[in-house]
Amino acid sequence: MKLMRLGEPGEERPVLHTDDRRILDLSGITADIDGAFLAADGPARIRSALDAGLLPELDARGLRTGAPVARPGKVVCVGLNYRDHAAETGAEIPERPVVFMKDPATVVGPYDTVLIPRGSRRTDWEVELGVVIGRRARYLAGHEDALDCIAGYAVSHDVSEREFQLDFSPQWDLGKSCETFNPLGPWLVTPDEIADPQALGLCLSVNGVQRQDGSTKDMIFQVAEIVRYLSQYMVLHPGDLINTGTPAGVALGLPDQPYVRAGDTVELSIDGLGIQRQSFASA
Amino acid sequence: MKLMRLGEPGEERPVLHTDDRRILDLSGITADIDGAFLAADGPARIRSALDAGLLPELDARGLRTGAPVARPGKVVCVGLNYRDHAAETGAEIPERPVVFMKDPATVVGPYDTVLIPRGSRRTDWEVELGVVIGRRARYLAGHEDALDCIAGYAVSHDVSEREFQLDFSPQWDLGKSCETFNPLGPWLVTPDEIADPQALGLCLSVNGVQRQDGSTKDMIFQVAEIVRYLSQYMVLHPGDLINTGTPAGVALGLPDQPYVRAGDTVELSIDGLGIQRQSFASA
Repeated sequence: MKLMRLGEPGEERPVLHTDDRRILDLSGITADIDGAFLAADGPARIRSALDAGLLPELDARGLRTGAPVARPGKVVCVGLNYRDHAAETGAEIPERPVVFMKDPATVVGPYDTVLIPRGSRRTDWEVELGVVIGRRARYLAGHEDALDCIAGYAVSHDVSEREFQLDFSPQWDLGKSCETFNPLGPWLVTPDEIADPQALGLCLSVNGVQRQDGSTKDMIFQVAEIVRYLSQYMVLHPGDLINTGTPAGVALGLPDQPYVRAGDTVELSIDGLGIQRQSFASA
Repeated sequence: MKLMRLGEPGEERPVLHTDDRRILDLSGITADIDGAFLAADGPARIRSALDAGLLPELDARGLRTGAPVARPGKVVCVGLNYRDHAAETGAEIPERPVVFMKDPATVVGPYDTVLIPRGSRRTDWEVELGVVIGRRARYLAGHEDALDCIAGYAVSHDVSEREFQLDFSPQWDLGKSCETFNPLGPWLVTPDEIADPQALGLCLSVNGVQRQDGSTKDMIFQVAEIVRYLSQYMVLHPGDLINTGTPAGVALGLPDQPYVRAGDTVELSIDGLGIQRQSFASA
């Protein structure tokens, strides 16, 4: 299933995007798609209602697409998780996942305008496979348990300001947490639709020029291992978002470092997870 | 005013702690002390009701003390913000604030048990002045504006696992985000009660042995500057928590590195903000 949230920021309503491109209203099932709903086996209730033909169609014309999950409790990121990206940034291949965080308030819709921070000279892109947690994960024993804790997958854009990230602080979070820096969606796709999360192509283009073209098969630490690993050090809660790293092709790693400028358009896609498109503007 | 939240986790009720040690029920004013309440001038409404004698007394015997603010949207931390602490860890005096984040779900009550993570060998303490945001802060122009955005102050314990923080990842968040790693409170103290946030003594003892004894006058970056600075890079929202750094005396900096063990008791206090006390136990 493909879950979405449509409407103005803070007023999104939950809907289901069907394979034949209809939009079905989920307001009768839940007020929102959030951690509490995911924890209470919400997707199973949607499935039952769908199979029973109980979900009414919604006229979604003109409605904004929000992030497909409301208010993540945290956004955990794994850095340098593709060999080619580690190489292009001059970093060693990490022996353990490199873990940092973004402000959860940076999560916005997949077509929302992204703001280039004041004073920014090096705003960069990063297409990533986003993993949304559906069950509390604490000291998981193995990869099976880890996969059981995943509510779904989404395209996640880990927008980054490289000067803030790398020059202003030895800790990266400052350059990862600027306003609007985490477009998410359009869909939260449930795991039954993703045969193998380690076989998904990821693409990103800027103004029509392809910049990233990778596959999740090239992750150093795979999705199940990331969830298992993180659960040894922190509790993952339903609704939390994990950004699992980006492949090569970011501006930082290109010869001419073509950082994003106001007016640029960035388009991202991951196999089976849909397309994002953002215009960038000055904050 | 000293605001508190009393009751079992997730079921806390908001109360006011008066100077003559009575507990007044705030349930008639708000369901909770959270970002939305702080943003809506909630403290001013409490003040009016208090002055009008409208707040009923509550028998608080036996009630657990929760963190004084519900569900921070984020926990931003400034590292190495006292000269003596930077020196004891072997770090340079930073030229800009060192900014990292903790999982907001780590926030617990001031007397709750703190869990030593499985596999931990180097769980450490850090008493810090916690700053809670009361108004949205974005590209603040100066220190006056920054102080206007502060809802209040609280004792904050930035518990840290040094091996996870320093050896397992070049980014610190992993060792800062373990379960129960941010006791907060007992009180959220409104700014009118704190004549000068840069003149507060901070103390911490372990099993009765004093380990930290500092003053906020020794901060490298002062509270108003931290809030102003952060607002240039991220939006601070009502209810967000900022941990402003710790003075010297952490286990990492002591000759024998006496890290916390299960069964240890840690007590923290800051002038005017009350006392915390935690027992440590194995996760």
